[in-house]
Amino acid sequence: MDVIAAANARAASLPPGAPGILRMEVGQPGTGAPRGAREAAIRALQDAHPMGYTEAFGLRSLRARIARHYRERYGAEVAESRIAVTVGASGAFPLAFLAAFDPGDRVAMAAPFYPPYANILTALGMQPVLLPCDATTRFQPTLAMLEKMDPRPEGLIIASPCNPAGTMLSPAELQAIARWCHGNGVRLISDEIYHGLTWGTVEESTAAAFSPSAVVVNSFSKYWSMTGWRIGWLVLPEDLVRPVECLAQNMFISAPHVAQVAAEAAMDCVEELEGNKAAYARSRAALLDGLPKAGFTRIATADGAFYLWCDVGHLTNDSAAFCAEMLDHAGIAATTGLDFDRDRGSRFLRFSYCGPEADMTAAPERLTGWLGRRA
Amino acid sequence: MDVIAAANARAASLPPGAPGILRMEVGQPGTGAPRGAREAAIRALQDAHPMGYTEAFGLRSLRARIARHYRERYGAEVAESRIAVTVGASGAFPLAFLAAFDPGDRVAMAAPFYPPYANILTALGMQPVLLPCDATTRFQPTLAMLEKMDPRPEGLIIASPCNPAGTMLSPAELQAIARWCHGNGVRLISDEIYHGLTWGTVEESTAAAFSPSAVVVNSFSKYWSMTGWRIGWLVLPEDLVRPVECLAQNMFISAPHVAQVAAEAAMDCVEELEGNKAAYARSRAALLDGLPKAGFTRIATADGAFYLWCDVGHLTNDSAAFCAEMLDHAGIAATTGLDFDRDRGSRFLRFSYCGPEADMTAAPERLTGWLGRRA
Repeated sequence: MDVIAAANARAASLPPGAPGILRMEVGQPGTGAPRGAREAAIRALQDAHPMGYTEAFGLRSLRARIARHYRERYGAEVAESRIAVTVGASGAFPLAFLAAFDPGDRVAMAAPFYPPYANILTALGMQPVLLPCDATTRFQPTLAMLEKMDPRPEGLIIASPCNPAGTMLSPAELQAIARWCHGNGVRLISDEIYHGLTWGTVEESTAAAFSPSAVVVNSFSKYWSMTGWRIGWLVLPEDLVRPVECLAQNMFISAPHVAQVAAEAAMDCVEELEGNKAAYARSRAALLDGLPKAGFTRIATADGAFYLWCDVGHLTNDSAAFCAEMLDHAGIAATTGLDFDRDRGSRFLRFSYCGPEADMTAAPERLTGWLGRRA
Repeated sequence: MDVIAAANARAASLPPGAPGILRMEVGQPGTGAPRGAREAAIRALQDAHPMGYTEAFGLRSLRARIARHYRERYGAEVAESRIAVTVGASGAFPLAFLAAFDPGDRVAMAAPFYPPYANILTALGMQPVLLPCDATTRFQPTLAMLEKMDPRPEGLIIASPCNPAGTMLSPAELQAIARWCHGNGVRLISDEIYHGLTWGTVEESTAAAFSPSAVVVNSFSKYWSMTGWRIGWLVLPEDLVRPVECLAQNMFISAPHVAQVAAEAAMDCVEELEGNKAAYARSRAALLDGLPKAGFTRIATADGAFYLWCDVGHLTNDSAAFCAEMLDHAGIAATTGLDFDRDRGSRFLRFSYCGPEADMTAAPERLTGWLGRRA
């Protein structure tokens, strides 16, 4: 949030006609909801029938559509009754954590990690436990790390593709972790919100296919490009269905009705969404070609999402200062690794490439010029 | 929720042509969002500009509009910076509770009460402390009750008008409670979501006018008739602004963007909303005239909201069974008092009159017939 504010301030301070700031710090698609989703929302709004609360777990038709998605995409049978539509993935985490864990419980996760995991756990009285990960394991936790944990944690959060590293677990790795968690009474929370945005290096797989006790979190914000609608979902194990339903009734009542209508329509907007994805793929390719030439030679395997996690230890030992300098001198906003890994993030930064394709492909040249002058 | 399911099941089982169930159990307006709100949402959806996340506390224009509402409605100056737009009032409570209280803290509230207060507190590790209230204090807590509490609680939740009793605190009572809380280090949470739906028996006042340390919760769901949009707000004391902002960034990112656009427009839809209110007033008048004749002679002073809290101790000692019988034999769904007061609710029930006016005004005759046959 601070980096967004800094980028906004810098953009506002530029003289007229100066080249703008390339926004590579943001985590949300520059595209809006697909046309079909917006049209469905408009039709629902033109209808005189009021859109009141839905059931706590959402519209039946949307839940059925999500269950179909699991069949079609993953070949996984997930009962509609286990699907809870939520106020984004953000709203899903507190429900999942409160239902799955008790205060004091230890919940493991790789570092670097998406900060709200730890912030929400801490706010709810639970203890995040970090598993320092690096390029040797694609910044993902391994079975060996889990087996070594003593005491064993009550929970594990994984994300594949993950934010910030954009790396993935292979289906075999995910399956092994899911089975180990299930067999050892460790509740697995699998954040799958970047599914759909994967680049062919690693096959996409869902924890729902490998474990009856795992909680899966997903969202319409990324592939479906619906950030501002605040709509996501959980796939719940049977034993958490009722507890989460009670929590959701109290803490949310339901997800926004019009967003549920739009989300259901979005699931059929394949052509537009694949078009968005193709643009990300071109941006990714341009950056993976251009960034190493500019000097960013150590980039985590860019398996998915729209992030590039760069080790800049050869360029700086203070990535926050480095990012501030990059914003000032190259006009490019990126996020310091310290936001994702307090201990080791000073040698990393995250580029996001979900912004306009023209901006993304223009970035390497600017960076080359800046690092050339800086060297 | 169970009573809604029972009413749905009963309605589904009726033979074709039979008189339908009168739905007096629901807590949401039968009307939809006002036309001007829906039109604003449609315009925003037709615009090509994507509606992404807003700032965590919402659109600046909506926050300014809410601040204006405090000036115009209450003559109270509330800085825009203290207004946080939230995912309904439901989404506001966890934020407020987490920011204001620590695990183990004791938070007082009148009984009967809106169950999510206690359920959310409990889920977050805090302790609800009930202050049994009755008709002698309009089912509202008093300064005397608070002064007697030992140990003193860390917090107090009040609601005026309240759910389920529909009763209010006078401005003098609210002011005295707010000042006592401020002076004694007791964090006041004032639920004002039924403001705008008050019937002239007690003047409406806001805790924001009486205390710099109070948290005010409000919502677009009731007066503004926007339940399914999940949009509400908090007025925060200065010391909680930053803590709530951090929590909101992690747990919600932002309230739904399109709902914020619609809500801002709704605040200018005075004519339609006052029309809704006039219909509630007519339903209320018909019920306050007809229910006593039918045998419901002990009704809490119906100061606000769209609820009538009836003492049915002279008719039953088991209001759950009584409500089930009423659904079966009179075709009227109402909510047992046990949902709002586990200890004493067996002699109470709640009628809601936010349903269609024709249904509400038809209720007394049905009840007269049923209670006549039952006697």
